Amino acid sequence: MNQIDSDIIRYISRKRLAHLATSDCGGVPTVIPVCFAYHNNIVYTPLDAKPKKILPTKLKRVKNIIENPSVSFVIDEYNDDWDRLSYVLIQGTASLIDHGEEYAEALAQLCEKYEQYSKMKLADLGLPVIKIVPNKIITWGNFD
Amino acid sequence: MNQIDSDIIRYISRKRLAHLATSDCGGVPTVIPVCFAYHNNIVYTPLDAKPKKILPTKLKRVKNIIENPSVSFVIDEYNDDWDRLSYVLIQGTASLIDHGEEYAEALAQLCEKYEQYSKMKLADLGLPVIKIVPNKIITWGNFD
Repeated sequence: MNQIDSDIIRYISRKRLAHLATSDCGGVPTVIPVCFAYHNNIVYTPLDAKPKKILPTKLKRVKNIIENPSVSFVIDEYNDDWDRLSYVLIQGTASLIDHGEEYAEALAQLCEKYEQYSKMKLADLGLPVIKIVPNKIITWGNFD
Repeated sequence: MNQIDSDIIRYISRKRLAHLATSDCGGVPTVIPVCFAYHNNIVYTPLDAKPKKILPTKLKRVKNIIENPSVSFVIDEYNDDWDRLSYVLIQGTASLIDHGEEYAEALAQLCEKYEQYSKMKLADLGLPVIKIVPNKIITWGNFD
């Protein structure tokens, strides 16, 4: 995986929102807005307790990851001054984690970044977290 | 395709930014932020003249659409008050258009929505437009 510099890590870390694309093995993609934490060069995005009609494990993104771990994850900045557009695109491999030290650390990072997760006691809900290991990171635009 | 009401159409139309996921036929997705126009229940997103290092026709999203027209397109609103989150997810079929009445109308819609396109004379650049015909539209969250 290519190295990314500290400016890019700061850009990623301060963003509240990203977009995650998964695909079923037939090549039908799905993209969804997600909250996330970036820690030790890994992306963690939880299956959380925002209002949902279905069980988290029935979510399309989860079913896709189980059958096809290739994912695409983008963090970006829109501005009507198009000289100030930017994005960081992470192509990666996703898995679900739901126990152990890394899982606990991911939940802690998410609760530290989002007080909403802290307040809803995300760590007590026992929900899986999607872990994305970057294979390739592409940056584009203006990071000043 | 399911019908969507006028509130949702207004929500889609007023957004400046969306995210488009495509997938190659091996199931590797790519997601990218895009500008777009929504006209007559169809999404149009141009291959434009924002600074790019490569020819528009060499873009990953274009290569993916040629080999696999299934795409996912999401318009969303983030707010740190999570009772105010929302998105409209469009699962659709994409194609490239580069001439004819529909192409001219798509460019006109894009230039009307974004003065940046008007100023860069998008219509004179002769670049293809990605046309997305929705197969399924999923709405989630708070649209008040």
